[in-house]
Amino acid sequence: MTMHVLNVDLGDRSYPIYIGEHLLAQGELLHRHIKGRQICIVTNETIAPLYLRPVQESLAGHQVDTCVLPDGEAYKTLAVLNQVFDKLLGARHNRTTTLIALGGGVVGDMTGFAAACYQRGVDFIQIPTTLLSMVDSSVGGKTGVNHPLGKNMIGAFYQPQAVLADMALLRTLPERELSAGIAEIIKYGLIGDYPFFVWLEQNMDALMARDMDALAYAVKRSCENKADVVAQDEREGGLRAILNFGHTFGHAIETAQGYGNWLHGEAVGAGMAMASDLSWRRGAISDGELARILSLLERSKLPTKAPADMTPEQFTSLMGVDKKVLDGRLRLVLLESMGKAITTSDINPDQLQQTFVACRAGA
Amino acid sequence: MTMHVLNVDLGDRSYPIYIGEHLLAQGELLHRHIKGRQICIVTNETIAPLYLRPVQESLAGHQVDTCVLPDGEAYKTLAVLNQVFDKLLGARHNRTTTLIALGGGVVGDMTGFAAACYQRGVDFIQIPTTLLSMVDSSVGGKTGVNHPLGKNMIGAFYQPQAVLADMALLRTLPERELSAGIAEIIKYGLIGDYPFFVWLEQNMDALMARDMDALAYAVKRSCENKADVVAQDEREGGLRAILNFGHTFGHAIETAQGYGNWLHGEAVGAGMAMASDLSWRRGAISDGELARILSLLERSKLPTKAPADMTPEQFTSLMGVDKKVLDGRLRLVLLESMGKAITTSDINPDQLQQTFVACRAGA
Repeated sequence: MTMHVLNVDLGDRSYPIYIGEHLLAQGELLHRHIKGRQICIVTNETIAPLYLRPVQESLAGHQVDTCVLPDGEAYKTLAVLNQVFDKLLGARHNRTTTLIALGGGVVGDMTGFAAACYQRGVDFIQIPTTLLSMVDSSVGGKTGVNHPLGKNMIGAFYQPQAVLADMALLRTLPERELSAGIAEIIKYGLIGDYPFFVWLEQNMDALMARDMDALAYAVKRSCENKADVVAQDEREGGLRAILNFGHTFGHAIETAQGYGNWLHGEAVGAGMAMASDLSWRRGAISDGELARILSLLERSKLPTKAPADMTPEQFTSLMGVDKKVLDGRLRLVLLESMGKAITTSDINPDQLQQTFVACRAGA
Repeated sequence: MTMHVLNVDLGDRSYPIYIGEHLLAQGELLHRHIKGRQICIVTNETIAPLYLRPVQESLAGHQVDTCVLPDGEAYKTLAVLNQVFDKLLGARHNRTTTLIALGGGVVGDMTGFAAACYQRGVDFIQIPTTLLSMVDSSVGGKTGVNHPLGKNMIGAFYQPQAVLADMALLRTLPERELSAGIAEIIKYGLIGDYPFFVWLEQNMDALMARDMDALAYAVKRSCENKADVVAQDEREGGLRAILNFGHTFGHAIETAQGYGNWLHGEAVGAGMAMASDLSWRRGAISDGELARILSLLERSKLPTKAPADMTPEQFTSLMGVDKKVLDGRLRLVLLESMGKAITTSDINPDQLQQTFVACRAGA
């Protein structure tokens, strides 16, 4: 497979995303972006046995320390973040150190935030190990941890020096996590890239079969789409909100079910089905177009309905406290047409209730 | 007193420092820099009884929450920082909130860091209540907390929306803290502004007597000096190091004595005496110039000697682990002439030992 190199254009914070197969074995890719002799690899208990050694081996000649965190969103906290600082200070890492995030979104978010804060900012490199983190947290610079009162409430916008998206790592990814990553990929097609949506319709079987070339293309095109949006709105002033397509509904599902029961990408899958349903009720897309969206979600083994036990009242309540509610007005990201999302506060409450009712499992 | 307004020029992160008397009562100064309706005042147990109420009163009409932290460097930790996040999330502060730091350096550093991290960045305003924080942390954007293995190891560069330096607050400042602030003021004269050093020689009695006009002038000129350096080197690449004049020696004293026994400014006072002594041994300043520096430090009731129990061996050891040691080479900020500091690694070890010996109390 040819390696793709995508440049995320953010002025003096620009960086490349390398997309290919067996990138971990190519030490020179990492060395290109490491300026000091100290390195700390941050990973978790699940990933360490699988991929820590090849990364360590490709860094021979450096001071390589490792910090293995417990696996899971429950550990994305300030207290666990402090374990990274303990390691860095205990091993006397100075300002020229480089952190390497080897893991999924949680490891990436925490490592990026640790890099943003350690001695007021050191370099970091991301090696995402899930499809979701390859297409989502690779681009955008969002880093941080959760607080008991809210997800991602403590963090920073901080860009990596480089991202290595190694398709070979996806061979060990659990099936549900593959689907969860595809949810975000479908999102890019729906919100801004109709030709990509059509490509996904034609290539979903290859993606689900983990065809390496198909996955690499989907990752590259997803990152390009996200990078386009982020370059126009790095610090989330307005446009970037369209990346939350499906997420307001999805967050309500995640909150109701307890985080960790549904994967984030699964909740986004059902959330996109709901946002598409509401878009259809507004007349923005046709019956046939809605059917195509639902069919693509189903082919990627994503849920297209909210859990049966979630009532319209519960959605109303949970979406009212969502952090995207600004000045008491509900704003939603909806489709204006296939391949084009908009942010709107012009929501018909009756149509929204109809969506809650229609998109409940068993309805 | 006329209010001075000094603009710290950092492109789109520029902000004003207002310097005057009774600024707290002028609500419009704060309102100019508050864009939302939510405000959280962060202060400590010592300052709250003195000045919290007037600040609250000048913000009538807003949602004003307060977070009162324990007083002291020992509480400048991630765990105490989390109390600020608890308050913000508990009171549902959104991204348009403004934090107000009402206190000295610890409160300023922690509040600035909380603002940098809360929802990945919200506004903050500084109201420094010590002379040291007016002339030091008002300019430079350094925020953060300590770690058991190192001071200020976790933080961010983050600029406030505005700084209000209210001279009236200095009336209640303990005498030792007044002197500690003057140490940093003298530093600006020594490292880059010889005419200011001469002004300080002429006006030290007025400063020590808390003449409001003299204090305001000294604060303004200090902030101008620091802003000049920071504007040229916002993220501490090189030039900014001269701001550490006296600090490498001072850190050794603080570490040896245990933080909190000597005030930071006191240690910097003795540290500047030591750096000046070494500069004199190198022939950079004359006998008479060294005497003028020591005399000015004495008039501001600052120590000009290290503690009697600190041996040259102890200095050697402690300065070897200082974070300013890069690649195994000791770099020091020394005077090239009166009013001009340089960073140099061209240190004569014998002369350095002579300084350790000569600058020990009782020597």
